[in-house]
Amino acid sequence: MTMLRDPSVKYSAFPQIPLGTREWPGRTITQAPIWLSTDMRDGNQALIDPMDAEKKARFFDLLVRIGLKEIEVGFPSAGATEYDFISGLVRDGRIPDDVTPQVLTQSRADLIRTSFDSLAGAKTAIVHVYNAVSPAWRKIVFGMDMADIKQIAIDGAKQLRDNAARLPQTNWRFEYSPETFSTAELDFSIEVCAAVMDILQPTTDNPIILNLPATVEAATANIYADQIEYFGKNLPNRDRALISLHTHNDRGTGVAAAELGLLAGADRVEGCLFGNGERTGNTCLVTIALNMYTQGVDPELDFSNIDEVIQTVEYCNQLPVHPRHPYGGELVYTAFSGSHQDAIKKGFAARERQNDERWEVPYLPIDPADLGRSYEAVIRVNSQSGKGGVAWVLEQDKGLKLPKKMQASFSHVVQALADETSRELGAEDIWGAFDHAYLVTEGKRFQLVDWSETHSGPDRIFAGKLTIDGATRSVSGRGNGLMSSVIAALAESGGPIMDIVDYSEHAIGQGSKVQAAAYVECRTADGKSIFGCGLDTDVATASVRAILSAANGAE
Amino acid sequence: MTMLRDPSVKYSAFPQIPLGTREWPGRTITQAPIWLSTDMRDGNQALIDPMDAEKKARFFDLLVRIGLKEIEVGFPSAGATEYDFISGLVRDGRIPDDVTPQVLTQSRADLIRTSFDSLAGAKTAIVHVYNAVSPAWRKIVFGMDMADIKQIAIDGAKQLRDNAARLPQTNWRFEYSPETFSTAELDFSIEVCAAVMDILQPTTDNPIILNLPATVEAATANIYADQIEYFGKNLPNRDRALISLHTHNDRGTGVAAAELGLLAGADRVEGCLFGNGERTGNTCLVTIALNMYTQGVDPELDFSNIDEVIQTVEYCNQLPVHPRHPYGGELVYTAFSGSHQDAIKKGFAARERQNDERWEVPYLPIDPADLGRSYEAVIRVNSQSGKGGVAWVLEQDKGLKLPKKMQASFSHVVQALADETSRELGAEDIWGAFDHAYLVTEGKRFQLVDWSETHSGPDRIFAGKLTIDGATRSVSGRGNGLMSSVIAALAESGGPIMDIVDYSEHAIGQGSKVQAAAYVECRTADGKSIFGCGLDTDVATASVRAILSAANGAE
Repeated sequence: MTMLRDPSVKYSAFPQIPLGTREWPGRTITQAPIWLSTDMRDGNQALIDPMDAEKKARFFDLLVRIGLKEIEVGFPSAGATEYDFISGLVRDGRIPDDVTPQVLTQSRADLIRTSFDSLAGAKTAIVHVYNAVSPAWRKIVFGMDMADIKQIAIDGAKQLRDNAARLPQTNWRFEYSPETFSTAELDFSIEVCAAVMDILQPTTDNPIILNLPATVEAATANIYADQIEYFGKNLPNRDRALISLHTHNDRGTGVAAAELGLLAGADRVEGCLFGNGERTGNTCLVTIALNMYTQGVDPELDFSNIDEVIQTVEYCNQLPVHPRHPYGGELVYTAFSGSHQDAIKKGFAARERQNDERWEVPYLPIDPADLGRSYEAVIRVNSQSGKGGVAWVLEQDKGLKLPKKMQASFSHVVQALADETSRELGAEDIWGAFDHAYLVTEGKRFQLVDWSETHSGPDRIFAGKLTIDGATRSVSGRGNGLMSSVIAALAESGGPIMDIVDYSEHAIGQGSKVQAAAYVECRTADGKSIFGCGLDTDVATASVRAILSAANGAE
Repeated sequence: MTMLRDPSVKYSAFPQIPLGTREWPGRTITQAPIWLSTDMRDGNQALIDPMDAEKKARFFDLLVRIGLKEIEVGFPSAGATEYDFISGLVRDGRIPDDVTPQVLTQSRADLIRTSFDSLAGAKTAIVHVYNAVSPAWRKIVFGMDMADIKQIAIDGAKQLRDNAARLPQTNWRFEYSPETFSTAELDFSIEVCAAVMDILQPTTDNPIILNLPATVEAATANIYADQIEYFGKNLPNRDRALISLHTHNDRGTGVAAAELGLLAGADRVEGCLFGNGERTGNTCLVTIALNMYTQGVDPELDFSNIDEVIQTVEYCNQLPVHPRHPYGGELVYTAFSGSHQDAIKKGFAARERQNDERWEVPYLPIDPADLGRSYEAVIRVNSQSGKGGVAWVLEQDKGLKLPKKMQASFSHVVQALADETSRELGAEDIWGAFDHAYLVTEGKRFQLVDWSETHSGPDRIFAGKLTIDGATRSVSGRGNGLMSSVIAALAESGGPIMDIVDYSEHAIGQGSKVQAAAYVECRTADGKSIFGCGLDTDVATASVRAILSAANGAE
């Protein structure tokens, strides 16, 4: 087999939804939905190695810490491991009062009974019954017609009602999923859900949860939103139901489908942390929650320590969070390219000057600090990087604030090194290159031994002891300031003829350990720009060193 | 820092787009866009270790094999490595006649000139100039007003025009990106693009490419679609431009945004294979293309050997494709849960009976064989799995087609084993459990040594030599058929009293190596169901063995 030139013989376009006036594209998400984590059920059943009891307990506790108030803890009728863990949660008092556990079961009397038994004694619990309703499932999987399928749902609803009456010490709530909703006839799904509601008699105070799964993602995200809006507009007694979304990611648009489904009026979102789940996974709750956060909406979930969340999820699932996963991935706060680095640096600088909290740093849609991540990793340097990244590393690690033109000049040095090594350069590589280019004097033509300065009328006279070409010599020069007098002394001693174009200096650190950094840009007789840098505890000596540094560069 | 309880002090909701009648949600994607791979530019610049020339060449050849006709090969003004590789592609004749290389450059005269030089001699080439237009970039990064920004674009366009005239041997095409389009004022982006078009004078036969990046994804996917539709409706001389989409995945909706952007009238999509690129990556071209394919639309890209594509991409990028990545991930054709396995098995069976090519296998949105993947990995078995998966393994690996009730019975054996081991069970584990439960006779109470059968009127008389409780004995029994006569012989020899409830038999393999598999369901005196299986080259002996297998199970 191979890909078909005309795939329409095998696959069909998903049809449009007959929605009259479409309202969802004009809406904005303004509040958090009810969240349901199905990590321990839909997520767990999709793992190569399902979680053992220790991992399940760890995952449950993590979900509680994050702030999940509804947690699907498993499929108790699937086996003893599942059942024992779930009943243990209740027995051992691990479930906080404000957290509601949920279990999933197929719509069969014996399995529903087992499911209730597993959570007996909980304060509140949700039993979630599903049966698939779409034509493909009716035909291929069950060999049943619509009436048969509807009857399965009705029978399941009766079991929900009767088992709840059997175990009155728990406040039972009900969830029904017309599984394969997104590929089923909408009016049939509504008919089945309405029949379930007829049995269970939900109220506005005690609504049923109707979960509408994109069991397999089958169309562009707008179609799912249309389906949700259609369902909500046509369901009788809409106010007695919470509409829940359950999207999968087969087309890579599970997050978008859930978001557009919220615009279309849904109340609740089911998913997994970092998008675990069958095949391509469920929608990622972390992404949807933080998408809301970056729009100014409180998601009511706490990812302040996102690295701890990642570590626990990776341990329990034994699957990695991808380095590019939104908000959590290892590389998502990292800018490699020069223009990005430069812009981010300016964004942080602008933020220090502004008077409010508005977040407006280029290329970073969220402040990494909000998630417990640091800025450290933002910048790396490789052969694609320009001056911004290099400058950032020198400033972060060494406190050096290079003038803009010097940044550009030094970036060529780094560029050449990166081209030569063909690998990412670390901060040490960059510092080494800077040191070699501007600071180290061994082997360089001009080296400072000692110096003093005297005034003569408006002029200054520099008297220095230098090592020039290996020999220590006394030199002097006259100028209208210290730096020009050093330049004059160099010119008189066989050094380069230079003018000063620009000069700046700043302190590094504070108190007794303060150092001065001086930067100078000189122009040689043939018009070339040369940059120099000098560091010293004395501000004047730093300037002298900067001139010598430039003179060494002119050779 | 930590997450804010009221994030609206720091982050703001993205405003709605003032689009009158919104057309895109009512449309369907019916044809492939023009694709542009930016793997070697946007992708490469986001790598921890950028590709060296060997990796770049390998990636380029892969893109050509897949069928990309426009490939952004790099950023030639960024450094010698980049420039040399790009000019080498032309010099060495690596670019097929129907493939157009593209290079990116900032809008600066010297960089644009270098960019043209790098592709001089190519048959056709696209030079892509960008400058950022959004208010945050104007204010924070450039300190410029709208007029300044527009002038940068105009100056860049003039350079494009003049450099193309300087190097007339190549058919130059132009692309302009108002970078940060998705967070800029729409009317300003249109104004800038129109100004660029005024300089370059594109025609309907030689249109300009206007690329509209979601440089940082900043809103739900529907907003990007609104922006694209607005742009297309308000751009003067729309028919002289190809509108290109360039989405990033900061909110996990880069694929959805590109798809909705296509509905909104775009002509072209830029992205990377498996979503590499800055931070969270660019939109994934594989996903968008195969999403089209599964809707019956030829994407004009070939992923028939998707594993080879993955291997090359992982080698060049030194980043993994996630196990749950749509279409390509290692786990996306794997069903672990019992109900999924059962449904998939029925889907494959139904497909064998149908008369057309329609793909309608539950839980598999695409035929894995279309991408060169096999069905082998579809089913695995763990403590979450039901009878479907177990039956599948026995049928695939051993040719055994267990009756439905026997599947259910045996699945309990596997379930117990999975619960006990708390790990995924492989095919060998399952076969071992089956062997032990039904086939192995050592240590079991009843073992067959030899047998024969005679007729007596309507009855049959079974005469067998069996080992019973370790001693070899001759036994006989009378019945209306072979199996009932064996059961009678067992009853008369101190064995269990059983009735036959069901019986089936099938051949395994073909020709001289054919074997018979016999399955029997018996009911014991106390109403218990017991299952037995016998394998033999002789169909009758297989039946006898099946009865003894059941008798052993009754003990």
